[in-house]
Amino acid sequence: MSTQALSLYQIEELSFQALTGAGASETGARSLAKAVAAAERDGIKSHGLVYVPNYCEHIRCGKVVGQAEPQVSIPSASSVVVDAGSGFAHPAIDAGFEKLIELAKENGCAGMAIRNSYNCGVLGYHTERLAEQGLVALGFTNAPASIAPVGGKKPVVGTNPFSLATPNGKGGVAFVLDQSASVVAKSEIMMHARAGKAIPEGWALDADGNPTTDPDVALKGSMAPSGGYKGFGVGLVVEVLAAALSGATLGTQASPFSGTAGGPPKTGQFFFAIDPQTFSGEAFAERISDLVASIEEQPEARLPGQRRLSNRAENDVNDIEISEELLEKVKAFID
Amino acid sequence: MSTQALSLYQIEELSFQALTGAGASETGARSLAKAVAAAERDGIKSHGLVYVPNYCEHIRCGKVVGQAEPQVSIPSASSVVVDAGSGFAHPAIDAGFEKLIELAKENGCAGMAIRNSYNCGVLGYHTERLAEQGLVALGFTNAPASIAPVGGKKPVVGTNPFSLATPNGKGGVAFVLDQSASVVAKSEIMMHARAGKAIPEGWALDADGNPTTDPDVALKGSMAPSGGYKGFGVGLVVEVLAAALSGATLGTQASPFSGTAGGPPKTGQFFFAIDPQTFSGEAFAERISDLVASIEEQPEARLPGQRRLSNRAENDVNDIEISEELLEKVKAFID
Repeated sequence: MSTQALSLYQIEELSFQALTGAGASETGARSLAKAVAAAERDGIKSHGLVYVPNYCEHIRCGKVVGQAEPQVSIPSASSVVVDAGSGFAHPAIDAGFEKLIELAKENGCAGMAIRNSYNCGVLGYHTERLAEQGLVALGFTNAPASIAPVGGKKPVVGTNPFSLATPNGKGGVAFVLDQSASVVAKSEIMMHARAGKAIPEGWALDADGNPTTDPDVALKGSMAPSGGYKGFGVGLVVEVLAAALSGATLGTQASPFSGTAGGPPKTGQFFFAIDPQTFSGEAFAERISDLVASIEEQPEARLPGQRRLSNRAENDVNDIEISEELLEKVKAFID
Repeated sequence: MSTQALSLYQIEELSFQALTGAGASETGARSLAKAVAAAERDGIKSHGLVYVPNYCEHIRCGKVVGQAEPQVSIPSASSVVVDAGSGFAHPAIDAGFEKLIELAKENGCAGMAIRNSYNCGVLGYHTERLAEQGLVALGFTNAPASIAPVGGKKPVVGTNPFSLATPNGKGGVAFVLDQSASVVAKSEIMMHARAGKAIPEGWALDADGNPTTDPDVALKGSMAPSGGYKGFGVGLVVEVLAAALSGATLGTQASPFSGTAGGPPKTGQFFFAIDPQTFSGEAFAERISDLVASIEEQPEARLPGQRRLSNRAENDVNDIEISEELLEKVKAFID
């Protein structure tokens, strides 16, 4: 398979051109294109350039309103609400973050709800940007239901990731944690299905709630929550915050993120931003430094997000190889 | 073993008398005594009357400053900071909650940090009281380190529970989720050790980070995180919020909650309170109702906190049997 080496700048521009070509607004396309380049930079291929044709198709089939303008409101002093208008999540998050950062610094903490939204890509990409502003950030995003409650059969919550990004109290980011409520990502099971390979026991359940190693059976059943009922509990917290509290669509009622059927998923996000200076002042940096050291001093242990950072260090220097086949697909959306 | 039947009122009064007898302030003793009675009411025996002699001993040995007065400050519009002064966590939480509820309703959301604190008992007891005020509540509490990062050997975070309590948007509480970051509570392993019984594989690790079924070896090693690195991740979030952001003592540096050695643990708590009316108005109640129904309609699935509620229904009607032996121990602290 022949490839081409692209810089991160080229990846962003190519994504931007394809997205606007498919019908996205310039603001929306820019938000998304930056996130696509950031995913490639961090080696998160699943949310890199490979996703751009999906985004473009989702504009064309009406799953995403390409020209949506996020409506930001400030219902009270520490709260931001964004209606994404069935557009992409990224420009809605970007529009709200400006206010969220301001309010969190002013009032010690603030919350932001996004409704009528869509898959927000890599959740840690968003929380990290709050941590870069010196804020402790918590992010939550819901997804179409795929995890059943323990003992049940019917999915109730999605793989519903949450993320914590924490500043180091000295102008930098200490670490970014970003994890889903399931044992593995649904895409892992899809990959096994495509390859005709069995999945390990413990990843998924069949439609009757029994363990299965058949990926096709798993895709008609449910994803196993990480750590059993505690993983389901984490997914439930995300659902309450990102869907109920945001006034977004519950995972049980949302259309799928993949494929072109069902119209806009209208799912949601919720973010908290907290100013550590307000709560613990100088003590914060010292404690974060000690906490990070207690993990880093153990040779086999890793701080969350380390793999992304080592990919980033490499991709900041070297171009990224992109297959000609993918390039063709992306370029097909450029007028 | 002979027992006596006590009403919840009698349990609260007895606890109050013992705690003041041991040297607690009346305010502190009342906060704690109410929580003890609430734990008995919900069938959480480990935090019921059986804990009162420990609390009393901890005052006497100086692990808790019985006469501490929590200092509440409001550094900015949506933030509450409480210094528990090495006293009990309960009166510090109670003192802060008054302000937290007010600020969350005024500003849409607010955060509360507690430092120089202690074991806060049943975390869900605290978040539930915020949900009773119509607020979505998140609570986090740190503990002496007992969970090592995956791949590591040395404990970095405690069993660090978090809790979500959500109102139903119609004046009541929808459910309370309260779970620790470990597979099981440390007390389960202690019980096996006392009984000389092996523990199931997967509960704990030895001092070299290898799985063990020997409870004594486990107590010198570390607790297994629920769901592997994702459980450790949840514990890490709690540590960042309840310890670093609160300016409390990290789990790696805190003295144990059990026994009488080491002085005050000075650990911390963090709470968020969010007003759903501000963020999603009428949509909130509808979504919570649908979410709850999607779990309750599955016969074998259970909403978080259901066992506590069924115990509560029973204990609201019937007295609770308390062993004479425990009664003697508690009464020994009454002047």
